[in-house]
Amino acid sequence: MNKERLIFVTNDDGYDSRGIRAAIEVARRFGRVIAVAPETPQSGMSQAITINNPLFLREISKEDGVELYSFSGTPVDCVKVAFDHLLRDRRVDLALSGINHGSNSAANILYSGTMGAAIECSFYGCPAIGLSLDDHSAGADFDAAAIYGARIVESVVAADPPLPLCLNVNIPKGRPEEIRGVRVCRQNKGYWREDFFRRHDPRGREYFWLTGAFVNSEPEATDTDEWALANGYVAVVPVQTDMTDYTRLESLRHIIG
Amino acid sequence: MNKERLIFVTNDDGYDSRGIRAAIEVARRFGRVIAVAPETPQSGMSQAITINNPLFLREISKEDGVELYSFSGTPVDCVKVAFDHLLRDRRVDLALSGINHGSNSAANILYSGTMGAAIECSFYGCPAIGLSLDDHSAGADFDAAAIYGARIVESVVAADPPLPLCLNVNIPKGRPEEIRGVRVCRQNKGYWREDFFRRHDPRGREYFWLTGAFVNSEPEATDTDEWALANGYVAVVPVQTDMTDYTRLESLRHIIG
Repeated sequence: MNKERLIFVTNDDGYDSRGIRAAIEVARRFGRVIAVAPETPQSGMSQAITINNPLFLREISKEDGVELYSFSGTPVDCVKVAFDHLLRDRRVDLALSGINHGSNSAANILYSGTMGAAIECSFYGCPAIGLSLDDHSAGADFDAAAIYGARIVESVVAADPPLPLCLNVNIPKGRPEEIRGVRVCRQNKGYWREDFFRRHDPRGREYFWLTGAFVNSEPEATDTDEWALANGYVAVVPVQTDMTDYTRLESLRHIIG
Repeated sequence: MNKERLIFVTNDDGYDSRGIRAAIEVARRFGRVIAVAPETPQSGMSQAITINNPLFLREISKEDGVELYSFSGTPVDCVKVAFDHLLRDRRVDLALSGINHGSNSAANILYSGTMGAAIECSFYGCPAIGLSLDDHSAGADFDAAAIYGARIVESVVAADPPLPLCLNVNIPKGRPEEIRGVRVCRQNKGYWREDFFRRHDPRGREYFWLTGAFVNSEPEATDTDEWALANGYVAVVPVQTDMTDYTRLESLRHIIG
């Protein structure tokens, strides 16, 4: 392996999560690692940026080809301070975001801090890969995610595909030998419906706590990330950031304008 | 006007901003209004959701067909508590998000709390329109945004287009008579490059504060929202939420898997 490659790592669960340690181990096999991750958990932060507050950068550790920093903002803030400050004018060969506790398939990509950060990395001229494990439990087994994550990194590094490149990679729960393979697929259509958990705080004020269920709008489709995950495959979705609905431009011109 | 229509209003600048008052006035002309907006400013919050904290809902005012609430979360949290709690099982005819201080054209849609909320509204089965004014100043003149916002709402209500429908509407700075018309267009390609403002706090710790500049990747294109805004037109982009890059599915299958 070429130890001169520079790999950037971030996540949304925070700098001391088990998932980022697994991602750093994957990245370490491909080059030097610089990781900047949130000071506090940032799940569900999407592509949020911090505009109205100052942020603090802290060196956590520096050893054996791995530098780890925490930053007091969102995942995207971490990416920005890395590429526009720490790594400014340095060539970054690859970016990894994750490994997230919990899948980011289907509409979850829109809310995901892990994928917000991966998308942001792809704006800085390097391939960007978001890795998420379909297991929310504290004791989640990251072995399969690390093995398949490394395989995908290796394929991308070897192929040197055109940029921008951003991949949303979701790995099923389970042992590596239970994984049936890798599927390149599309984002499943669907949405969340919430059932707010409502209780009263110690002072009698009612509070709301978000909880809900994903509604799969196309449960029969077999070419989606949801299907792949549910059927034991690693799901890989190539991601782009043009939100324009081109199918409606013409009809809208008749309605508006 | 049919006063029985129900219009939902939200924003990202907060429940007491001038922009939401302008949006409520627009909405009021089309029906009853229920507005839920963030307790505190939430610019740049993208489609973030609050997972790890309880949230509080507060009634601000209830008068003359307009109910206004604040919610202590993100713009998307406001949408969720509105549709899944306050308005649960009620038909909502239209959702407005804004009027935002500052444009949300091009890549700004990805970071925008205004557009995060508009997209979320579109998941609940009503047409959703995000309105943003290309003027960050505290004394911004919302007249043109209100006039063109109302025209677009009227067109959408009259046409009753197929759902989901989400529009990203950006209005140029200036007086209504200076606006040259409305353009239905696509999202301009580009990205932000940051120059962190770096100073020391009263205790000597270095802090970082986000600042930067938008890089337009296609300054010559005349069919984009950036071009429309820069040339005095109201820009209307139809928005969809499938982030899949379909052009790369096949080539990725050769690289991975």
